[in-house]
Amino acid sequence: MINKLIKKIEDSKAPIVVGLDPMLDFIPNHILERAYKDKGENLEGVGEAIWKYNKGIVDATYDLIPAVKPQVAMYEQFGIEGLIAYKKTIDYCKDKGLIVIGDVKRGDIGSTSKAYATGHLGKVVIGGKEYRGFDEDFITVNPYLGSDGIKPFIDVCKEENKGLFILVKTSNPSSGEFQDQQIGDRPLYELVGEKVAQWGELHMGDNYSYIGAVVGATYPEMGKVLRKLMPKTYILVPGYGAQGGKGEDLVHFFNKDGLGAIINSSRGIIAAYKQKEYEKYGPAAYADASRQAVIDMREDLKKALTSL
Amino acid sequence: MINKLIKKIEDSKAPIVVGLDPMLDFIPNHILERAYKDKGENLEGVGEAIWKYNKGIVDATYDLIPAVKPQVAMYEQFGIEGLIAYKKTIDYCKDKGLIVIGDVKRGDIGSTSKAYATGHLGKVVIGGKEYRGFDEDFITVNPYLGSDGIKPFIDVCKEENKGLFILVKTSNPSSGEFQDQQIGDRPLYELVGEKVAQWGELHMGDNYSYIGAVVGATYPEMGKVLRKLMPKTYILVPGYGAQGGKGEDLVHFFNKDGLGAIINSSRGIIAAYKQKEYEKYGPAAYADASRQAVIDMREDLKKALTSL
Repeated sequence: MINKLIKKIEDSKAPIVVGLDPMLDFIPNHILERAYKDKGENLEGVGEAIWKYNKGIVDATYDLIPAVKPQVAMYEQFGIEGLIAYKKTIDYCKDKGLIVIGDVKRGDIGSTSKAYATGHLGKVVIGGKEYRGFDEDFITVNPYLGSDGIKPFIDVCKEENKGLFILVKTSNPSSGEFQDQQIGDRPLYELVGEKVAQWGELHMGDNYSYIGAVVGATYPEMGKVLRKLMPKTYILVPGYGAQGGKGEDLVHFFNKDGLGAIINSSRGIIAAYKQKEYEKYGPAAYADASRQAVIDMREDLKKALTSL
Repeated sequence: MINKLIKKIEDSKAPIVVGLDPMLDFIPNHILERAYKDKGENLEGVGEAIWKYNKGIVDATYDLIPAVKPQVAMYEQFGIEGLIAYKKTIDYCKDKGLIVIGDVKRGDIGSTSKAYATGHLGKVVIGGKEYRGFDEDFITVNPYLGSDGIKPFIDVCKEENKGLFILVKTSNPSSGEFQDQQIGDRPLYELVGEKVAQWGELHMGDNYSYIGAVVGATYPEMGKVLRKLMPKTYILVPGYGAQGGKGEDLVHFFNKDGLGAIINSSRGIIAAYKQKEYEKYGPAAYADASRQAVIDMREDLKKALTSL
């Protein structure tokens, strides 16, 4: 799957993943009203609205981008009905040829991680038939529990030809509270990065590992160090746009081959029509605004990457 | 909610939480077959079987115990249908007067943690009406992202009178890989424990905080240190039984008042009928075996706690 992701990044010339993180107040009124009319003004109606909103964005951008990253929390907040919209979104994006990175940040002790891996990347067999729970292509995982919490995810990735992005240094302001703590002569996130690189070397695609890392765009200097520490690791970089990361900050997340990183933007793309720059589109053309925001992000990154 | 949990622990004289972590091979054949007949031999049938299996255990034990802890991964592995069983289990346990600790180990950047907190502890308002996603009483959360990833959970707990158990030192063999790393003169888990104690002091029930901690039974010496470091923190202790923790190891997780800890057992109770000690019950009386296992665990803990 990492080879497929890289091929799609090269073909699209856009190392971009669109974060499908729907908030209720991003959804234009005409979509909400229609969904409430069809399914009721309740959780089911909201689920329908989320799905239709996502579909509009995917239809308007799938030819420009290699991948999407739905953040499961934004669906989980609406309970079962939200998760049904999550699953519909995954299936539709895969039908459109997109790679789906489920941003689930799961992680637990071995036997429990195995269950998460089964539900998100693997399959169960019932009465001799195979069934799949959510069936993302990649998921994000949390390393706090150590190797035996990660191994079951890796095992399922190997079996299913899928992949992971393991949290190394997150994009939020207080990520340093634990992640930056000095252990001997280096911070915890470097130790985690080193582990990710070790796990990755044993699980390689052609040139990069299918065990990737998450490193926030908001910490470019740390990204530079981690890039060198994990040369064969693909880095998923959140924090571009709304969280403050800029194209020029991102250059050091890439390798000299122009690969090695994929940049996520969520609000900046899916709620583009709410920003000054794209407000002329208005709510009715929210998906066109998203398309333009993808094109602008692609150009921003292209410009930044000429310095490689 | 922490006051209610403590009251129930005192009344039941059983600082026990039953881990409702159903695996397909725990479920007796008569339940599986009936569920497949009713709902089909597919994910829906499995969801039905899980729910019926859980119901049997809850019916047989709810008068003995204060709380249950369903591990969401065991449901999530079956996708939407599994999560429907998770929600049914939560609702039924609450109807039976049990406190429900959702073992979800969520945690993300601020805005995303807020969405998780909404889905598991809080509510959304649609068309002026309130709806709740999963509605557990407590959930477990992962601290790797730092304060701003925890704060939204605390805010919702405060608003909704609910609570958290934050991972400090987990029960698995490789938990030390990152958690035991020395930062200056102490390990990372102590630093996290200190933070949990600080957060907790600002969010108190009568005698204990509603911001609790998770510390594995498999590390009793560390539990002893953490108990002193977090005197007002309730500690959720997994790892009893199947993972190797024994009653005598657990005494130092408690305070002198006999409170301060609640011990989880999952397989040891819910799949008791599969163990040598309880095999005489057989699959048909699996729930009676669970009841006996709860009684035996209560006695084991009572004996251990006499030394307090």
